[in-house]
Amino acid sequence: MSECVTIWTYDWVPEGPRGFVRDIRLRWACEEAGFDYSVRTVPFDDRGPAHLARQPFGQVPFLSDGELEIFESGAGLLHLARKSEKLMPRDPVGEAQTLQWTVSALNSMEMVTVPWWFLEVTGAQENGLSGWLKSRLDHLESVLKEREWLAADRFTVADLLMADVLRVARVRSFGDRPATESYVTRIMERPSFKKARADQMAHFAAADDMRPQP
Amino acid sequence: MSECVTIWTYDWVPEGPRGFVRDIRLRWACEEAGFDYSVRTVPFDDRGPAHLARQPFGQVPFLSDGELEIFESGAGLLHLARKSEKLMPRDPVGEAQTLQWTVSALNSMEMVTVPWWFLEVTGAQENGLSGWLKSRLDHLESVLKEREWLAADRFTVADLLMADVLRVARVRSFGDRPATESYVTRIMERPSFKKARADQMAHFAAADDMRPQP
Repeated sequence: MSECVTIWTYDWVPEGPRGFVRDIRLRWACEEAGFDYSVRTVPFDDRGPAHLARQPFGQVPFLSDGELEIFESGAGLLHLARKSEKLMPRDPVGEAQTLQWTVSALNSMEMVTVPWWFLEVTGAQENGLSGWLKSRLDHLESVLKEREWLAADRFTVADLLMADVLRVARVRSFGDRPATESYVTRIMERPSFKKARADQMAHFAAADDMRPQP
Repeated sequence: MSECVTIWTYDWVPEGPRGFVRDIRLRWACEEAGFDYSVRTVPFDDRGPAHLARQPFGQVPFLSDGELEIFESGAGLLHLARKSEKLMPRDPVGEAQTLQWTVSALNSMEMVTVPWWFLEVTGAQENGLSGWLKSRLDHLESVLKEREWLAADRFTVADLLMADVLRVARVRSFGDRPATESYVTRIMERPSFKKARADQMAHFAAADDMRPQP
């Protein structure tokens, strides 16, 4: 049980990314685990040396926990998971399964979903990653047809992360993959996800009032 | 110290990917740590249910360690790193830094380098990920200008992985980033990398003789 987890995110973002900024992953994990945590901010508009010293790619989130500072949401999740059995089983087999599926969400799935999405929104006429995305989603559908959770027959931080990765790519891609659709829907119904999303939306909405008018 | 690490890779691959198949990451880590390990194979040509049961995306490598089976090279590296101080420091700050930079290689850098490379080789006229790749490499160059290693002022598994991620994207992109160039070159000069690469090359070359002639 941690007394001092701090999640760092932007002070404000435009409406588009609200509900998707990756601090939601750390908020959600803290909610699942029952950790006390606070949220602090860095400027969205000015990602200068002080920000880059803590997140070298100029992104959020990062996490403070006592003397530790950790960037990369995936690293923050694995750090939190080692502090709570609610996020990751304590037995070696369950831990290894959780680790492999967490990395799989980061490196097999998100390696395709985010660049695919990036090409979609930047308006390439034909998205050269669509075939690869389809293949990865098909493989995952085969897994989710056979079981409810990715690791250890229970909800773990790997499901939290995979569901978060998938919901961005959701609208256009899942219609013919009912097991994936059901999986993402089921996980997004968890109270801890709903609270984390509502808290993030409220955080950025409150900042609108402080914002210089254009 | 492990007595029973087994690295699984393909029985054969075409010449193009030799030296880059990701079993090299696990071979290299075992060499750095001084682990005993063996290499076993699954068929390259037939990635059927037996393969998919152990690697759901039909890829390699995966790793066996006693009762544990782990897919995703990044997860295998983190598993091995927890078994050897040569791959990751034992103090919490050093461990957190190693974890964040390992995930950074997987999710901030490789999320861009591999899709960028995929678009390059599949012949899109204009690579829609080039600007993003440039930005990520520029951020990393800023980090590597200031220090020799990513984490904990020493070589860790995070450097092993980041260097492996970067060498694929190397030829066309690093000329104007001397710190990154020097970093990758320095790490590729490590005897453990050279041995892992030579062993992989020999493994696939030996399989040519067993291959049905076209």
